[in-house]
Amino acid sequence: MVHKCEIRVRYSDTDQMKRLHHGAYVDYLEVARIEMLRDTGFSYAQLEAQGYAFPVIGLNIDYQGAASFDELVILETRIQCTSPVRIRFNYELFVKEHRIANASVELACINLETARPTRIPKDFLAQLLAISS
Amino acid sequence: MVHKCEIRVRYSDTDQMKRLHHGAYVDYLEVARIEMLRDTGFSYAQLEAQGYAFPVIGLNIDYQGAASFDELVILETRIQCTSPVRIRFNYELFVKEHRIANASVELACINLETARPTRIPKDFLAQLLAISS
Amino acid sequence: MVHKCEIRVRYSDTDQMKRLHHGAYVDYLEVARIEMLRDTGFSYAQLEAQGYAFPVIGLNIDYQGAASFDELVILETRIQCTSPVRIRFNYELFVKEHRIANASVELACINLETARPTRIPKDFLAQLLAISS
Amino acid sequence: MVHKCEIRVRYSDTDQMKRLHHGAYVDYLEVARIEMLRDTGFSYAQLEAQGYAFPVIGLNIDYQGAASFDELVILETRIQCTSPVRIRFNYELFVKEHRIANASVELACINLETARPTRIPKDFLAQLLAISS
Repeated sequence: MVHKCEIRVRYSDTDQMKRLHHGAYVDYLEVARIEMLRDTGFSYAQLEAQGYAFPVIGLNIDYQGAASFDELVILETRIQCTSPVRIRFNYELFVKEHRIANASVELACINLETARPTRIPKDFLAQLLAISS
Repeated sequence: MVHKCEIRVRYSDTDQMKRLHHGAYVDYLEVARIEMLRDTGFSYAQLEAQGYAFPVIGLNIDYQGAASFDELVILETRIQCTSPVRIRFNYELFVKEHRIANASVELACINLETARPTRIPKDFLAQLLAISS
Repeated sequence: MVHKCEIRVRYSDTDQMKRLHHGAYVDYLEVARIEMLRDTGFSYAQLEAQGYAFPVIGLNIDYQGAASFDELVILETRIQCTSPVRIRFNYELFVKEHRIANASVELACINLETARPTRIPKDFLAQLLAISS
Repeated sequence: MVHKCEIRVRYSDTDQMKRLHHGAYVDYLEVARIEMLRDTGFSYAQLEAQGYAFPVIGLNIDYQGAASFDELVILETRIQCTSPVRIRFNYELFVKEHRIANASVELACINLETARPTRIPKDFLAQLLAISS
């Protein structure tokens, strides 16, 4: 399943090259991830309230184009369970029909009390597997 | 007493007007505040560890000029105890000899457990009064 | 006329007090401003393309509450022409029915070539006056 | 040659996990890059003034630890010329003696007029090769 999410480029996210600053992409990837979870019936806020955290352990962005102020960035996200304790999000970013970047972000599932890796909660995992098949 | 602090404008803090984005000033004011506390022998991190928080309750910025990428912004900070539970920081911001902004930020002293206003810790207040006289 | 705009609190906009960082409000005010202009038929991007810039010259925020990750911040914006070369936006910010801040932002109209204040473009001013009455 | 740079974690760069937000690392990498160039006698601002831009085309971060508010992040940077039109920066990030991340950032050299890749300016390249040997 591909999840689609649109984010409009904020003025504060531009830099003096008159483009979306390369660092702001990371926040956009995070927004797309959280919207994807929401659409699967889970909220990141609830998962945190249940004692789980999902810190980012890996980030990769391959920039191929650019986005300007006020343009809509379209983020297409695919999810992948890479291990019982890790989830990977693969992204394609577009402005209109032009791809501006590929990206991937890997998260670990952490028990907030012990601060150690823990298995992804079963119901959440089942939902992830359902949407990634 | 005036406290002086220099912050170099980051590329990520510029916008497409090729200037330090007006929102980034707020983070610079915060850095200057924390450096001022450090120089008086208190660290904001320690105060938080002791159960105090100092949320911002008021912010005012009067922009008079601009700063560009890689320029040094000089922040001159003066402190003012406006009540037993509030502190106010008054700022002048310069690039070289040109003033680019006046600003003020008011903080409340909060007990982190009760989440309610509480008196500024005595030793911290004594130190604040010493440096503001 | 009141313009309403909703912005969801991003994870990257929280701080270790587990709240929307006070500096991020400034970017939210900017987003609300740009959405308000869009709804009146003007885009900030077009105005810049026509040779105008609207730098912020004054900012004031009175924080009265807080917003948490994933909450929707509702921004109610009212516009005010304070002079032929200045526009002021007055804001009330809410989470659900709780007001979390009042704010105002004043912009100057600048000719991008001369970098000097200039009269707000007539058609834009007419539209501003129409919606502010 | 290894270039060392220290950046203190700002309050605004923390998130509600009480750590430096993973997206803020990207801005820290940029600061370290610009400080490294400065120490080699070039300023990024001057290079832009001479008609060159160095947009980021690739970004990779492998997070291994975490940094907290007010801690000093130490960035060790090594430079690598991967082609006549590309430079790569390889980073190790530490808090005290603990490595918190490895990262790499690849830049393309662009002619600002044509917006097309161009050879890295000779004197700048000579300096880069001198420090990377």
